[in-house]
Amino acid sequence: MPEKEEYMKRALELARKGEGHTSPNPMVGCVVVKDGRIISEGYHEKYGEFHAERNALTRCTEDTTGADLYVTLEPCCHQGKTPPCTDIIIEKKIARVFVGSMDSNPLVAGKGVQILRDHGIYVETGILEEECLKLNEVFYHYITTKTPFVVMKYAMTLDGKIACATGDSRWVTGETARAQVHRMRGRYRGIMVGIGTVLADDPMLNCRVEGGVDPVRIICDSNLHIPLASQIVKTASEIETIVACSQEALEAERKQEKIRKLKEAGIQLIGTEGAHGVNLVELMKKLGEQNIDSILLEGGGTLNASALEDGIVNKVYAYIAGKLIGGMDARSPVEGMGIDRMADAITLKNMEIERLGDDFCIVGYVK
Amino acid sequence: MPEKEEYMKRALELARKGEGHTSPNPMVGCVVVKDGRIISEGYHEKYGEFHAERNALTRCTEDTTGADLYVTLEPCCHQGKTPPCTDIIIEKKIARVFVGSMDSNPLVAGKGVQILRDHGIYVETGILEEECLKLNEVFYHYITTKTPFVVMKYAMTLDGKIACATGDSRWVTGETARAQVHRMRGRYRGIMVGIGTVLADDPMLNCRVEGGVDPVRIICDSNLHIPLASQIVKTASEIETIVACSQEALEAERKQEKIRKLKEAGIQLIGTEGAHGVNLVELMKKLGEQNIDSILLEGGGTLNASALEDGIVNKVYAYIAGKLIGGMDARSPVEGMGIDRMADAITLKNMEIERLGDDFCIVGYVK
Repeated sequence: MPEKEEYMKRALELARKGEGHTSPNPMVGCVVVKDGRIISEGYHEKYGEFHAERNALTRCTEDTTGADLYVTLEPCCHQGKTPPCTDIIIEKKIARVFVGSMDSNPLVAGKGVQILRDHGIYVETGILEEECLKLNEVFYHYITTKTPFVVMKYAMTLDGKIACATGDSRWVTGETARAQVHRMRGRYRGIMVGIGTVLADDPMLNCRVEGGVDPVRIICDSNLHIPLASQIVKTASEIETIVACSQEALEAERKQEKIRKLKEAGIQLIGTEGAHGVNLVELMKKLGEQNIDSILLEGGGTLNASALEDGIVNKVYAYIAGKLIGGMDARSPVEGMGIDRMADAITLKNMEIERLGDDFCIVGYVK
Repeated sequence: MPEKEEYMKRALELARKGEGHTSPNPMVGCVVVKDGRIISEGYHEKYGEFHAERNALTRCTEDTTGADLYVTLEPCCHQGKTPPCTDIIIEKKIARVFVGSMDSNPLVAGKGVQILRDHGIYVETGILEEECLKLNEVFYHYITTKTPFVVMKYAMTLDGKIACATGDSRWVTGETARAQVHRMRGRYRGIMVGIGTVLADDPMLNCRVEGGVDPVRIICDSNLHIPLASQIVKTASEIETIVACSQEALEAERKQEKIRKLKEAGIQLIGTEGAHGVNLVELMKKLGEQNIDSILLEGGGTLNASALEDGIVNKVYAYIAGKLIGGMDARSPVEGMGIDRMADAITLKNMEIERLGDDFCIVGYVK
């Protein structure tokens, strides 16, 4: 019955409208259908506010008795910031519920569907399941691991360089690709770079898209070298900013004055234990505790290498420009010590490619 | 009239059957049509043998009077190794000739079409012109510049490495991509690598495809470091091999014994003038004089960088595997000094992308 897929497609469209505003909640869309006609729609618009089902049902101006409800994610059955969605579905006398993907939240996880069935509602699950799972890949990762879903993004030339040997990197890709990156910044809760990028480019790391939400800026800076005059520090009172350093640096006598000034500027400092540098595994745990469910990693070669070595990367976006610059000493997207044998390479799965003007983007998931 | 395009498409298919065997002649296909039916077909099968039109017309068992002839390239009108094609078209009483692309050979260049028209034959040109021009991009380049069409090919990881820091590079891409590269080796007249590749991998550089023709092997080896025990030297009596060096090395007293042995093994030595290394521009001229119309450049980073700097590269095939290996010291497809500013990068045009199993191939032309 391709009709079901049509309605679920519409629910997916609605869900995406919440992008960037629901974190750490999933994006959810909902469509109410009666007599072969959509009589109401809704989506989860913002974290802390009503869920998709409640929005669709309470706003409906027609009688919902005996109607069908399509929802991209299993309805919740627990009291959170808002009342359980199963309650309103039962109350509004919905006859059949069609679910995209199941909820992995242990508070729901099948119980939502069970409660509906117990109330005599017909429930069918797995409608466009793959699309529904992908829509909320961040949520599924975060709810089960409690650490952020990390997306490594870089832009390189067709000969594998992110910058010339001189450091010049403006611009590798064209406007279409760069605009897409700005939209990505609005989609993930955090953005992470290394101190090298701050020192080289003095970036703002904000989301320069109309209506876009700025991500929390996370700077990996083990020895607290970040300049007080940098854009990041100067704008830290307006845009949430975290500097991750070593526990040692955080406790060093000679760093206390700098630490005081960074805090005064509005920066949160997170120290991690470890032999040298920032312990990324520990950092991810601490960021997860702060409800940071996703991070766009725009590192240079050193931070990217550490992130891959430490196994924190989930997804890769490699933007590739049709240009060649050469250079033995030009910068590469992943540096560090590297892997010794090609057979031991980190491989990607479910790869996709997209053309963006004169550039390409290859996307894949770390196996 | 989409019918014309259909017949020309068939002629293009036939033309491609000659791939690897017609050099330095173009690939040409021909279809003879009468009463809405193909009554004969032919293609240029091998350099020195009959052209497509003559093959199609002499083999035709039906009366060709008043028939249409579709040919991918303007018919020749000069006596070469075989008689002019215009003669047989006139003799066989063809009524209409449909041409794909015009010949750039100054001996033909529009004269073929003119002679046919002078004999009252209707001629229409430009049928699927773009495809016909692309089919013979090597021929068009060579006939006008007298130097080989150079195709730079490399296989890299998604983080831009052609080998690990340890040198290990087996294998970057999967079987589908590697098989395609072997077919490419049969398509171009020469294959060129640097001495670094010979010392590191001791390759054969042959075409391991059923019925494939081995390309002429060209080694850029300015100081004649190639080992007498290498695969290349040991097989030089079977597969045509050229070692390009500096004129200085060629004349050096202490090199004469090595030179004698290389010649004895069947190797041709070409010396080039220049401050250091092999002068690639001069080498291309000398190779062009030997009827080498095309070269597949499978260089490492150093030779690739020189080739791009010297402006001898026409086309790039970048194979990209969905894997990451990292490494500050891992090898990159283009090394050398590199370009200082991203804005001055060498850009590619008419880019295309193809998926090959788990790998991608991005193809483009140097602007």
